[in-house]
Amino acid sequence: MAGATAPRRSRITPEREAELYGAVLDLLREVGYDALTMDAVAARTRSSKATLYRQWGGKAELVVNAIRHDKPVEIGDIDTGSLRGDLHALTSRDDDCVMEQNSALMRGVAMALHQNPDLRQAFREQVVEPEMTEFRRVLDRAVERGEIRADCPALDFLVHMMVGGFATRTLLEDQPPTRAFLSSYIDAVILPALGVPTTS
Amino acid sequence: MAGATAPRRSRITPEREAELYGAVLDLLREVGYDALTMDAVAARTRSSKATLYRQWGGKAELVVNAIRHDKPVEIGDIDTGSLRGDLHALTSRDDDCVMEQNSALMRGVAMALHQNPDLRQAFREQVVEPEMTEFRRVLDRAVERGEIRADCPALDFLVHMMVGGFATRTLLEDQPPTRAFLSSYIDAVILPALGVPTTS
Repeated sequence: MAGATAPRRSRITPEREAELYGAVLDLLREVGYDALTMDAVAARTRSSKATLYRQWGGKAELVVNAIRHDKPVEIGDIDTGSLRGDLHALTSRDDDCVMEQNSALMRGVAMALHQNPDLRQAFREQVVEPEMTEFRRVLDRAVERGEIRADCPALDFLVHMMVGGFATRTLLEDQPPTRAFLSSYIDAVILPALGVPTTS
Repeated sequence: MAGATAPRRSRITPEREAELYGAVLDLLREVGYDALTMDAVAARTRSSKATLYRQWGGKAELVVNAIRHDKPVEIGDIDTGSLRGDLHALTSRDDDCVMEQNSALMRGVAMALHQNPDLRQAFREQVVEPEMTEFRRVLDRAVERGEIRADCPALDFLVHMMVGGFATRTLLEDQPPTRAFLSSYIDAVILPALGVPTTS
């Protein structure tokens, strides 16, 4: 996925790219989006700012690519043979500790999205829309298997349901989403809304 | 509801209280939570800062009370005789213009919640928990009428589902939640998750 981005990044090796993205995410966790500077990324990764700008164009694109690169598995590649299996496999990829770190990171990014239209656009185009396409692959297979009716109205709202579980848990309940929480939420909300029995 | 708050506010008339809260919400829309100062509230409302602190204790409590006061109807008082009727009545209270204003306001507040633990605690205690209690009254009546099974697991997640619709629409799709959107979301997600037919 990360390798399939814009051609101007082709001169960087995948290893170097992974190292750069890792440093960007570390900085994002440490100081947040607003305080993250291209100078700091350059210093941390021993690159020149000119290189960073040439390769990524700017801070928003660099950060969004780092977030996108951090997702090791394409959602649509998870194929356990049932929708319930796929969704539970999705939440089991990370342990609770990683999930808490990611949740803190994404909470910070959500705040930055609010205040930075350029970040919002890059995030929507390069993270949200590709993820929605991936989720759609998972759902399409469930429709083909006859698990979900093709005209089920909840098909359009999977991302809304998922975000609701994450965001409410994090912000209103002041708790990180755990695997146990997400499992309950999938069985209690997402599968019933899609008309899929949870006891299969 | 606003009249039932702490006794130390008893010396202010309801009209004066409404005027103060209105000014706080105006300031919140204009400058956001972080830039809102007690000085500005005092100036705008021709009060002394000492009075504001004596009545509300601090900025977080004043803002949270203003938000709470802005909700004209207790959710639990909406009683149309069916859950679907109640939820749709809830979304029909405001027109799309008011909903867009409220959405912008709440988006700003959500960002401030992230960075201010005192605001988060006051908001949870004085807005989220009372609203959850009110929603529970609506759901309890639906259980009593036999619309929802008493052991339906989605009963615990109504707020998560609602927030998901609002937050995703606002942040990821960059569109305000409209009445039409919320109506579709209630029928596509919330009622099916609760096992309630949408064609009643």
